[in-house]
Amino acid sequence: MSPSPVLPALQLGPGREFDRIRAIARALGTRASGLGDDCALLPAGSGTLALSTDVSVENVHFRLEWLSLEEVGWRAAAAALSDLAGEAAQPEGMLVALVAPASATEVDLSAVMSGAGSAGAMVGAPVIGGDLSTGPVWSISVTVVGRTASPVTRAGARPGDGLWITGVLGGARAALEAWRRGDRPESRARTAFVHPEPRIVAGRWLAARGAHAMVDLSDGLGGDAEHLAAASGVALKLTLDRLPVAPDAVAEARRLDLPVQLFAAEGGEDYELLAALPGEFGPTDAMEFQRECGIALTRVGEVEQGSGVHATLGGRPVMLSGFNHFAQGP
Amino acid sequence: MSPSPVLPALQLGPGREFDRIRAIARALGTRASGLGDDCALLPAGSGTLALSTDVSVENVHFRLEWLSLEEVGWRAAAAALSDLAGEAAQPEGMLVALVAPASATEVDLSAVMSGAGSAGAMVGAPVIGGDLSTGPVWSISVTVVGRTASPVTRAGARPGDGLWITGVLGGARAALEAWRRGDRPESRARTAFVHPEPRIVAGRWLAARGAHAMVDLSDGLGGDAEHLAAASGVALKLTLDRLPVAPDAVAEARRLDLPVQLFAAEGGEDYELLAALPGEFGPTDAMEFQRECGIALTRVGEVEQGSGVHATLGGRPVMLSGFNHFAQGP
Repeated sequence: MSPSPVLPALQLGPGREFDRIRAIARALGTRASGLGDDCALLPAGSGTLALSTDVSVENVHFRLEWLSLEEVGWRAAAAALSDLAGEAAQPEGMLVALVAPASATEVDLSAVMSGAGSAGAMVGAPVIGGDLSTGPVWSISVTVVGRTASPVTRAGARPGDGLWITGVLGGARAALEAWRRGDRPESRARTAFVHPEPRIVAGRWLAARGAHAMVDLSDGLGGDAEHLAAASGVALKLTLDRLPVAPDAVAEARRLDLPVQLFAAEGGEDYELLAALPGEFGPTDAMEFQRECGIALTRVGEVEQGSGVHATLGGRPVMLSGFNHFAQGP
Repeated sequence: MSPSPVLPALQLGPGREFDRIRAIARALGTRASGLGDDCALLPAGSGTLALSTDVSVENVHFRLEWLSLEEVGWRAAAAALSDLAGEAAQPEGMLVALVAPASATEVDLSAVMSGAGSAGAMVGAPVIGGDLSTGPVWSISVTVVGRTASPVTRAGARPGDGLWITGVLGGARAALEAWRRGDRPESRARTAFVHPEPRIVAGRWLAARGAHAMVDLSDGLGGDAEHLAAASGVALKLTLDRLPVAPDAVAEARRLDLPVQLFAAEGGEDYELLAALPGEFGPTDAMEFQRECGIALTRVGEVEQGSGVHATLGGRPVMLSGFNHFAQGP
């Protein structure tokens, strides 16, 4: 863990949120080490320990009119655990720093922690530590710890790889758009937002099948594909027509007069995985994945030489925007 | 990391903050594991990994009229690193989840992170990960990771052990009291509050010399001695007359009409260590500690059979209160 005296520039995609992270990394200089992946990695015996931290803030990431306190806790923990999925790590524990309004009761605090605890328990990660404070709004910082024999980072995608996505995209955004205009979201869309399932089993399956690079889709496909392209030093070619979209995204996209594929690609917080798999990985392998992991795996593009993300829809190039947690409230 | 099906009650001292933590632990049941020490411990090769998380919230733990943003970052990181000191672990890295007002500039964010990074760099812990969000006030969650061949927990103090304290107590409280009444604190007291030094070297020195139990004094001697007594299942006898007090605490204690030893024992956030050392550890050893670690080591009491903390001042029993971060703003 001795940081190198000259740090390479952080390999993140474009965007104001990432400009801020780059500015911080520059200010830290040698006081930072290994930033820019889903997880920090530390050697631990014969394996590697993966760590990641994720903060969820009331009125930035969620509103209490939309979620129960238990769902707030689940969602915060699942978002953090998703980073372990993106690294193909097996979760071992979580530390939860909970900031609660002074009016919060023991029952309220227990509800949030219980939700977080249940998300962790589902993937084998008990709460192993934490801290408690008052504050003006709810805020939950979850740090997750996992272990892996061989981590899959965002770097490593090679020209000729196929690009694959787990599950479906756009469900969380469909719920968000419904809430924003004062409606109740469809039940499946609501579940996608409040109860995301970290793709731990899927991430480990893909790693075992030779994934060269992975990233979890918290910033939306638009944002996270840029990170993977930048970290791997390659171009990603995405054919958005192939994108697996959540059923409830269709109606919401229509309301916004957006093609559903763009709606889904630019929505954040689906917590699915984008993986670069060797070119020979094909439809039969994807069916095996679906049988064993219980969710779809869809090829959405290829890795090529070059840089950046090049998306097309109906044969025409389209620019994708990422989902900016920093600039934009829910 | 498989949690036991029946969890023992959390071995913490009394207090409303700790009642809340106990309620949360009860609600979590088997979804929690190993709570109640300075650090969570995970096996890692031939050693043990120690992890701890600590959150600092604006207007709860600090005010921006008192501290620069760089000092906010330093203090947040040092408070978290202090938990590694209490476990005798060598820091390896920090993950920082930073919540900042939307008005914060890149320079502001970099200042906080730079302060945190400097506290980490001083003890060999670079920033290895983090997250960024907006929120109504500044809030910094720091998760620290360290390694130790043999952790020193709060449990393990034995009847016959001597109780020792590093450095001096009451400096941080002296600064806090000065600020609260609208004054500027004395320079040394201010430094104790804004620039605490995690006692990493001291903690490892004490562990190497056979410390049976340790705790860092974040909740004040009043609160943390109770934790150590509860975790070890012993009684702690403290002779407050022997307490090493910060020079600036004297005048502040006089203003409050409090004996300076009580003022110091009930002040929080000094981030010194309380250690239970074998009975044969004596004044010569303490002088060696001072020579090698550059701070004082003072014997303040003994471990006996029984339970709870039994403090005396001038031969009379006194009740000690802890410092409650949860109930009380700065």
